[in-house]
Amino acid sequence: MSKLRVAVIGAKGRIGSEAARSVEAADDLDLVAAIDRDDPLETLTEAGTQVAVDLTHPDAVLGNLEFCVGHGIHAVVGTTGWTTERLATLRGWLEAAPGTGALVAPNFSIGAVLTMQFAQQAARWFESVEVIELHHDNKADAPSGTATRTAQLIAAARTEAGRPAQHDPTTHGLDGARGADVDGVPVHSVRLRGLLAHQEVLFGGTGETLTIRHDSLHHSSFMPGILLAVRTVPSAPGLTYGLEHFLTDGPAAADGSPTGPRGA
Amino acid sequence: MSKLRVAVIGAKGRIGSEAARSVEAADDLDLVAAIDRDDPLETLTEAGTQVAVDLTHPDAVLGNLEFCVGHGIHAVVGTTGWTTERLATLRGWLEAAPGTGALVAPNFSIGAVLTMQFAQQAARWFESVEVIELHHDNKADAPSGTATRTAQLIAAARTEAGRPAQHDPTTHGLDGARGADVDGVPVHSVRLRGLLAHQEVLFGGTGETLTIRHDSLHHSSFMPGILLAVRTVPSAPGLTYGLEHFLTDGPAAADGSPTGPRGA
Amino acid sequence: MSKLRVAVIGAKGRIGSEAARSVEAADDLDLVAAIDRDDPLETLTEAGTQVAVDLTHPDAVLGNLEFCVGHGIHAVVGTTGWTTERLATLRGWLEAAPGTGALVAPNFSIGAVLTMQFAQQAARWFESVEVIELHHDNKADAPSGTATRTAQLIAAARTEAGRPAQHDPTTHGLDGARGADVDGVPVHSVRLRGLLAHQEVLFGGTGETLTIRHDSLHHSSFMPGILLAVRTVPSAPGLTYGLEHFLTDGPAAADGSPTGPRGA
Amino acid sequence: MSKLRVAVIGAKGRIGSEAARSVEAADDLDLVAAIDRDDPLETLTEAGTQVAVDLTHPDAVLGNLEFCVGHGIHAVVGTTGWTTERLATLRGWLEAAPGTGALVAPNFSIGAVLTMQFAQQAARWFESVEVIELHHDNKADAPSGTATRTAQLIAAARTEAGRPAQHDPTTHGLDGARGADVDGVPVHSVRLRGLLAHQEVLFGGTGETLTIRHDSLHHSSFMPGILLAVRTVPSAPGLTYGLEHFLTDGPAAADGSPTGPRGA
Repeated sequence: MSKLRVAVIGAKGRIGSEAARSVEAADDLDLVAAIDRDDPLETLTEAGTQVAVDLTHPDAVLGNLEFCVGHGIHAVVGTTGWTTERLATLRGWLEAAPGTGALVAPNFSIGAVLTMQFAQQAARWFESVEVIELHHDNKADAPSGTATRTAQLIAAARTEAGRPAQHDPTTHGLDGARGADVDGVPVHSVRLRGLLAHQEVLFGGTGETLTIRHDSLHHSSFMPGILLAVRTVPSAPGLTYGLEHFLTDGPAAADGSPTGPRGA
Repeated sequence: MSKLRVAVIGAKGRIGSEAARSVEAADDLDLVAAIDRDDPLETLTEAGTQVAVDLTHPDAVLGNLEFCVGHGIHAVVGTTGWTTERLATLRGWLEAAPGTGALVAPNFSIGAVLTMQFAQQAARWFESVEVIELHHDNKADAPSGTATRTAQLIAAARTEAGRPAQHDPTTHGLDGARGADVDGVPVHSVRLRGLLAHQEVLFGGTGETLTIRHDSLHHSSFMPGILLAVRTVPSAPGLTYGLEHFLTDGPAAADGSPTGPRGA
Repeated sequence: MSKLRVAVIGAKGRIGSEAARSVEAADDLDLVAAIDRDDPLETLTEAGTQVAVDLTHPDAVLGNLEFCVGHGIHAVVGTTGWTTERLATLRGWLEAAPGTGALVAPNFSIGAVLTMQFAQQAARWFESVEVIELHHDNKADAPSGTATRTAQLIAAARTEAGRPAQHDPTTHGLDGARGADVDGVPVHSVRLRGLLAHQEVLFGGTGETLTIRHDSLHHSSFMPGILLAVRTVPSAPGLTYGLEHFLTDGPAAADGSPTGPRGA
Repeated sequence: MSKLRVAVIGAKGRIGSEAARSVEAADDLDLVAAIDRDDPLETLTEAGTQVAVDLTHPDAVLGNLEFCVGHGIHAVVGTTGWTTERLATLRGWLEAAPGTGALVAPNFSIGAVLTMQFAQQAARWFESVEVIELHHDNKADAPSGTATRTAQLIAAARTEAGRPAQHDPTTHGLDGARGADVDGVPVHSVRLRGLLAHQEVLFGGTGETLTIRHDSLHHSSFMPGILLAVRTVPSAPGLTYGLEHFLTDGPAAADGSPTGPRGA
């Protein structure tokens, strides 16, 4: 079987260079181009690229994707900065290129994506739920984007299941002790030297608790998700938002993420 | 709306008496009978029972269920001791009573059932997986039945996804350090004063880990699952094995448990 | 060897009745009296009580202790409501009764006391420290008293070791995400159905973290500490505040690292 | 105040080069030499070295230390391969060089050392104790050396406190489920892709558990311990084995519980 021909755009960045190495190391993939900001996009077509991985910058990504989609190159996009408008632009290009697919994902860690899926599935079954996220002590925002998103998904699943808002028993105490309120779900942010990125979702019901914990110990945790996306995107024409849609073999994937534009 | 008329058989046992109290406390359920071994089964029909909860003994359960199914009473069964033959007998009775349903479940803890479901869903995505179960220091068997079952489900999901057996790097060490081997999944059993029943499933991939942990802190953890089953079984004619089939609103429920006789 | 003669005051309360049973079950202790509010204190002297355990009410405890100390009965006190003034009153009585001892303790859980000790010992060695306490969803105050006290002890130990205040990297986010500030130590309070009382102290340094976690799964966790206090208080004349003073073999033992060649 | 003059031997190795960088970055230390196997030891004396850090190889370390001690240079030694005989040889050299100190330590992670200290302190207070160590999936030995050592220290502390052997309730099950037996303490070894080095000590008593967990997320976790040793060894003449002897403020501090009125 011939190998899938893959290019990495942004190959000099930390994640981009690691992605290039990972593609190179995969038996079923062929790294045919590894370009950065000063290289012409034509390198991609000259190399016969089938799938391009974009790990660049919000300023560059749309131009890169217009070129790729225009030339029938499937795209896997980890670059940030997506808005509804930007997604609509990309969807327009894809509609004009039937058979070409693009996956845009805010998080390529399979563990993080599964954590969100499981949290959504568990949400309706428990009276109580809180989120604790723990990160290194250089992180400027609290809560993390992933924790905020997780709490929102949980809150939506509770609402959909007809669960009432959870009751906070606290009548007196110190400000902040009960965390931040994200759609009624308390979220606690720990900042600790030595950590990287970690998240716990705690569910509590009568006599029992269920905890889903994700630990990111190295930024290489994005690689398996990127490779999975590279292998899957050729058979997923159009725009897909969120890696969860590519975890299709999992029993839950079918009706997965409630907000992804896919299929809309 | 009229309340569902529920009876508990084995109402003097520890779990049975708690189940009776839980039914009584539920707004939508009416406890119409609470009988034990010396009470006639006709009490159930005289009381107009719609659903009977059997929490008795392997010696008594089949007789109880023959009576219930024969009289069109749906059954929720937590009594243990089921074999393939016994399930076949029960299925035969149910086929002769169209519209009547019976749920037999080895575990009514929703947290435990979700842990197994999530473990199955995650299994295909990670190179490594091990199970740690932790129980009080009076438990005679190791590993626990739940941990063994969880490991088997994980192993089956890995096989189904075409994953090779996981590699044990250990070349020297002490006997037992690497746990028990259940279909290729290491299972470790901790016995500790002060604990009740706890289980952790640890998945490891490149740069990240995913942990699913279930803590049973009180035997009341079975009650929400029993009540869920009571409410669901009237609309699930025939035999259902495993509470996971009633967690239908969860995205994963459809193709849930790989071994349940339901639908067979 | 003759058994120590022990009485329980408040023997009809939940903790008191359990304490009476625990004393009765101990081979080296003799339960000679178990009284409650309507019983005369003279029962204690008539029974030849050597140690009285007071598990009553702030309104009753001072009267009980005046009687005990006045009759040379050692006291172990779990009743709450102590102030500096009340402790001074008790100390005065004890000074007039040389050889008589009283232990007043806010927490008889050995695990909770060790957690605080270890947290103090570790505090000076790590850049970062945060506390997470997790309780059942009926708890009205947040943070818990134990967590507040733990954070204060950690802060004091850091100050004593000359550590600067820890830096919070958060520049933007949601109110409450970073927890309550107790003397510069962030404290997070989780409230979850199914939990009892749990606490985690997380320390972070370059490349590593150290976590000390205490789980109270049943209120019987106070019993070993109460029995330890009963056995120790006869040889500890005067007032002792805090069970940690009776865990004297712990810290001492650490210095005698059994195999280090140092000083040999 | 003048800076302490420090040399690193083995400065081209992974740990050695990181140690050199850490010394260079410390305000109170001056990196005066960074040598490797081809450099003459005289570089150390010519540079006016006060403390040498040896991170080399068992074949080289004794020669390096003979030179250092012979020239009054204090030594901090992370190189492995120490036997009773080798330690005796080193002790002999130190006796001939009064005022010169050497610290040999099997582990420079402060978190690992504290974990062992706390485990020893807690051991006498709990009925049950087990150790779980978790490492990356390339580790060849199981259990880890640190876990074995921790279990031995716990067993010794239990014996010293007169505790009987803990009872294993297991009467039937699978081989290996209950872990390896290290002096009566069960030790479980988990091997998982994505992990580095982690250890949990679990203590269980009536109604409660105490868990001490150490996570090594990066090999830089050795640096704070190495710097601590460099700063302390000049005032610790003779041979010291184990970093725990330099954590002297820890255990002492615990006795001074800041608010107890005892002894006031």
